[in-house]
Amino acid sequence: MKPAIDFWYSLGSTYTYLSVMRIEALADRHDVTVNWRPFSVRRIMQEMDNRFLAGKPEKYAHMWRDIARRAAMYGMKANVPVPHPIKQFERAHLVATLGMHEGWGIAFTKASFRRWFVDGQEPGADPSLGDSLREVGQDPDRVLAASADPAIAAELDAATTNARGLGIFGSPSFMVGGELFWGDDRLEDAIAWAKFGEVRRLA
Amino acid sequence: MKPAIDFWYSLGSTYTYLSVMRIEALADRHDVTVNWRPFSVRRIMQEMDNRFLAGKPEKYAHMWRDIARRAAMYGMKANVPVPHPIKQFERAHLVATLGMHEGWGIAFTKASFRRWFVDGQEPGADPSLGDSLREVGQDPDRVLAASADPAIAAELDAATTNARGLGIFGSPSFMVGGELFWGDDRLEDAIAWAKFGEVRRLA
Repeated sequence: MKPAIDFWYSLGSTYTYLSVMRIEALADRHDVTVNWRPFSVRRIMQEMDNRFLAGKPEKYAHMWRDIARRAAMYGMKANVPVPHPIKQFERAHLVATLGMHEGWGIAFTKASFRRWFVDGQEPGADPSLGDSLREVGQDPDRVLAASADPAIAAELDAATTNARGLGIFGSPSFMVGGELFWGDDRLEDAIAWAKFGEVRRLA
Repeated sequence: MKPAIDFWYSLGSTYTYLSVMRIEALADRHDVTVNWRPFSVRRIMQEMDNRFLAGKPEKYAHMWRDIARRAAMYGMKANVPVPHPIKQFERAHLVATLGMHEGWGIAFTKASFRRWFVDGQEPGADPSLGDSLREVGQDPDRVLAASADPAIAAELDAATTNARGLGIFGSPSFMVGGELFWGDDRLEDAIAWAKFGEVRRLA
């Protein structure tokens, strides 16, 4: 069986853009399976009073510059800053949760992040929401109705509870067995751990 | 002239251990000059109300585990967790500031970090302070008296003001021209920027 990593992510997280766009190619190259797990990092950060960037303009400025520099290294576009924080956080996650059931969740996530960082459109709100759904072959009206099912909200709650129980406090996070790796800059570490049981520089 | 990076650091910063122990070999390999600049990150973080880890036990636990995993990759010892936060933060920085004038500041910094992460002894307090000074050929009594000179405190203040003006908000930070890189995991990015003016994977 191929080694696997669980990719816990939120759609409103800035650095998650880098991971969403590069995790599939990197995992393929190293023959590792990725399980995509949307959850509400916002809820967990509020519980911890983790005010990541509030009142820290220097840190915020560094984040955008850092993302731009690293996106360039990875050959990705990144028209930073993008609208942040996003307003339709909850809706974006309900739709992604439904999408994971129906098989279009990963494609929707990638489409949403691309519109956010390339076109400056917030995930979870129109025009991004409708356009991203149509792009992945889904009817927006049907999806919005289906994602309002309380069972979807319950599943998102359960995923968030699951993440909290694993010690996850930010997005993106990668779990390999019981080992937690936080941040896009630890994606290689997580893949190395899945393959070798230790952190190594990947070839 | 060789390209240069300014290495802004504080002795009480955990991740800074990794940079202190690996920056010289890495810079040598890439033919980059390093200017070591001790400053008080604590003062800047307090001004920003940047309570990095307070009330975030999961984030704190991840930090130790992450440092341990990465130290292993770098071939360094790291008996984590180490005593943190350190109590004699100010004194450690006054001594380091004096040491930079007198030519033993880098060696003292490395000796202090090694005692912290290998032997579990806090920087700036005995036995680490006296032993680290003796290790680098200095008499602790003389150094303590000399580092109490108000001119040394003024210089540490000026360095911290300088760091704040550059937008620095954490340790370790690396400046290349006007470009700020924060975190041990951005050391390679800073070195690439110094050489190529962009972030690249280093050979």
